[in-house]
Amino acid sequence: MAKDKKSPRPRAQTPKGFRDYFGTEVSERAEMLHRIAGVYHRYGFEALESAAVETVEALGKFLPDVDRPNEGVFAWEDEDEGWVALRYDLTAPLARVYAQHRNELPLPYRRYAMGPVWRNEKPGPGRFRQFYQCDADTVGAATVAADAEICAMLADTLEAVGIPRGDYLVRINNRKVLNGVLEVAGLGDDAQRDAVLRTIDKVDKVGVAGVRELLGKGRLDASGAYIDGVGLSEAQAEPVLAFLSSKGAEAAETVARLRAAVGGSAIGAEGVDELEEIAALLSAQGYGPDRIVIDPSVVRGLGYYTGPVFEAELTFEILDEKGRKRQFGSVAGGGRYDDLVKRFTGQAVPATGVSIGVDRLLAALREKGRIGGGAAGPVVVTVMDRDRMADYQSMVAELRAAGIRAEVYLGNPKNFGNQLKYADKRASPVAVIEGGDEKARGVLQIKDLILGAKLAENASLEEWKERPSQYEVPRGDLVAKVREILDQWA
Amino acid sequence: MAKDKKSPRPRAQTPKGFRDYFGTEVSERAEMLHRIAGVYHRYGFEALESAAVETVEALGKFLPDVDRPNEGVFAWEDEDEGWVALRYDLTAPLARVYAQHRNELPLPYRRYAMGPVWRNEKPGPGRFRQFYQCDADTVGAATVAADAEICAMLADTLEAVGIPRGDYLVRINNRKVLNGVLEVAGLGDDAQRDAVLRTIDKVDKVGVAGVRELLGKGRLDASGAYIDGVGLSEAQAEPVLAFLSSKGAEAAETVARLRAAVGGSAIGAEGVDELEEIAALLSAQGYGPDRIVIDPSVVRGLGYYTGPVFEAELTFEILDEKGRKRQFGSVAGGGRYDDLVKRFTGQAVPATGVSIGVDRLLAALREKGRIGGGAAGPVVVTVMDRDRMADYQSMVAELRAAGIRAEVYLGNPKNFGNQLKYADKRASPVAVIEGGDEKARGVLQIKDLILGAKLAENASLEEWKERPSQYEVPRGDLVAKVREILDQWA
Repeated sequence: MAKDKKSPRPRAQTPKGFRDYFGTEVSERAEMLHRIAGVYHRYGFEALESAAVETVEALGKFLPDVDRPNEGVFAWEDEDEGWVALRYDLTAPLARVYAQHRNELPLPYRRYAMGPVWRNEKPGPGRFRQFYQCDADTVGAATVAADAEICAMLADTLEAVGIPRGDYLVRINNRKVLNGVLEVAGLGDDAQRDAVLRTIDKVDKVGVAGVRELLGKGRLDASGAYIDGVGLSEAQAEPVLAFLSSKGAEAAETVARLRAAVGGSAIGAEGVDELEEIAALLSAQGYGPDRIVIDPSVVRGLGYYTGPVFEAELTFEILDEKGRKRQFGSVAGGGRYDDLVKRFTGQAVPATGVSIGVDRLLAALREKGRIGGGAAGPVVVTVMDRDRMADYQSMVAELRAAGIRAEVYLGNPKNFGNQLKYADKRASPVAVIEGGDEKARGVLQIKDLILGAKLAENASLEEWKERPSQYEVPRGDLVAKVREILDQWA
Repeated sequence: MAKDKKSPRPRAQTPKGFRDYFGTEVSERAEMLHRIAGVYHRYGFEALESAAVETVEALGKFLPDVDRPNEGVFAWEDEDEGWVALRYDLTAPLARVYAQHRNELPLPYRRYAMGPVWRNEKPGPGRFRQFYQCDADTVGAATVAADAEICAMLADTLEAVGIPRGDYLVRINNRKVLNGVLEVAGLGDDAQRDAVLRTIDKVDKVGVAGVRELLGKGRLDASGAYIDGVGLSEAQAEPVLAFLSSKGAEAAETVARLRAAVGGSAIGAEGVDELEEIAALLSAQGYGPDRIVIDPSVVRGLGYYTGPVFEAELTFEILDEKGRKRQFGSVAGGGRYDDLVKRFTGQAVPATGVSIGVDRLLAALREKGRIGGGAAGPVVVTVMDRDRMADYQSMVAELRAAGIRAEVYLGNPKNFGNQLKYADKRASPVAVIEGGDEKARGVLQIKDLILGAKLAENASLEEWKERPSQYEVPRGDLVAKVREILDQWA
């Protein structure tokens, strides 16, 4: 069968978990990344583009200890290189790049990277096995001025892509403060610490009172299920709750409360000092609490981060799939992680960075109507007489030279209805018609397709007559008339 | 050993044939693709971005008939999907996308795609296993107006990225004309036809006289080696040579000569008609022979193309690695291929398209100094007093707000020399210095680093004194003075 010459037709299908992106999905993302890159560039960050393929050895974390590497990455065995894999994020390649090129790179090294990453995970609704990341990191700067800079840049970036001030908030915390609080609470056991961190992370959902229950015996959740608690005593839970309640109206107030919450912990005090310094740096540059705040509820996962952590969230409300109002939530996050290249060189190198959730941010902009509006389709010049293709091509050439998106219908022109259906499918704002009669009289028919569609939907017969959506203009007025119509819908 | 906890440090190394791209390498390519996308968009082409991973079945051509797929692609076996592979070009995914989504897509479907593709080949100098392609194709348009449009768009694109008119030429031929000539020459044998096509392809190197020898008995090449010929008789070679010599000063002349060369061949006459129509369409839109010409020497490989073929070459001379002058050569090519989706659907769908060699085009722009000039690095604000980081951050915030790329030095500020070395490595045009003394007097020192470098190279001691490269200005003049220096080097 397999050797049969008449093999069955192949299926035209993306592999599961992969998808195609069309038209504005692609160009809007490209435009957004272009604007982000503009801000990053202005901040002195340099672009870096590494290959999609890395050795599994360099990627780390997913070492092949049996036949095949662990799940999670797409990996295969290369004849020359051994196991290689598609990158699963942009941080692991940064570590490899920095270790490989450290003698040529400036120190500190500010870099940004944008591009797809791949995860070999079970796909689900809205979860794909290839997606975009957009990262900026500063490698080799121990000072928290680097963290403050990233937070300022993040605020600027959100505004540059179209999120107005007031619709976002960058929230900063510090893992050292958290560690100090855990120290004060007397939690030495790693498992217990992790359980407490996970519980703190739920404060957005269950509130401080809910966290209090979850740190103790447990809690009956909204669905009626009983959630077991971490089992801390009241005395142990108290510093954690004080910490969580320490957000004040101003940074100075928050810092003072945090200082009380970490008590005598040296690491905690160091963390509070850092937050105070970051707040001062940002305030000096004019980033007030309408843009960037210290917020003790930011946890950002376990283990990885060693100092300041930050998160950008969009604060406006959207309707979820069940029609309930909820905040849009997080679109970016990051923090300080100080062991980036140690695996390669043995030397610890401090680093801090942020990753923007490109697809979530795009979704937010669409939700707010900040992208995706306007007439995206091209002006379509229809073909009434196939022998006069040169005339029609000259028309689109004129329109394009004037910066107007335009095309000639290149299908079989016999059925004019098909041409208008095509213009509809292309979301064309304007169709241009020049039959033999028009040609002889030196005129064109120009159809306002957006108005036409509106009239077809709503208008009475009188309105139809009063407000025609088709104009006859001299051939020489092509560009002017089309522009007039486009401007009206812009 | 493998189970040993102290495993050796991983090598920080890209897999062979892959590389990292830094800074302007990335941003200049992004800028070029942005401009190309602008032209394509104006022509009514829609962006398409498919995933890097396709099923081997959908990719075709490289079916796994043994354990592993053939060489040439990076492929692996997925648990759920069977064999999958990284795309090796952008045309195979287009075929799959069109077949999969044909009910929703407009017909004709104009699309462009830009992105990396992967080849599992032995890497060599300048040959990488991941590289960019940038394609535009029109699917479902049988008319050669689609081919003419692609050629016009290609000319516009080259000008949009910075290749001035006169420095490039789009050359068009038609495989049907070639086939007609081979028919007239009486060459029925496929192998002999292919040999003749390969010989024609050499006309740029060996000239028409060289082709005459190679079509006959053979030829002594420049290195002294004797190259066996195809073995045609004079009578058989004559139509081929007439065809090759048919390029006239004007399209009409070339067309007339080609018509003579294809004699009574029906397919040949069809090809000449198509070229004539393309020439008329382009001429009506003002694309003269300074931009687009009919050129019988364009062959563009074997087999694949079925009608018009085209190629864009840069006509200016560069020095090759041995210091000899040569033309820069081809940067884009394409043509009509009419069996795109037949594998999937059983229905033949006409298509035509072009692929731009992104890296070659970038190299050409760099060669001509059209990109890569100017001050790319950021203004560096040095840190004289680490307790006044907020002051320095405020300075860069002011500069950035004025659209000037700027950064604070975030390394250890103790050694001022290191800060200036850093500025040098960053190719910074300007350094800003505010020590305690300057702070007290309300002034800044602003160093023109480009002038400084020039003076250091060339100037006599007198010139050094006369033309200082460091200015003391009031703190309030920071942005104005920096801009003045930058404008001078722009």
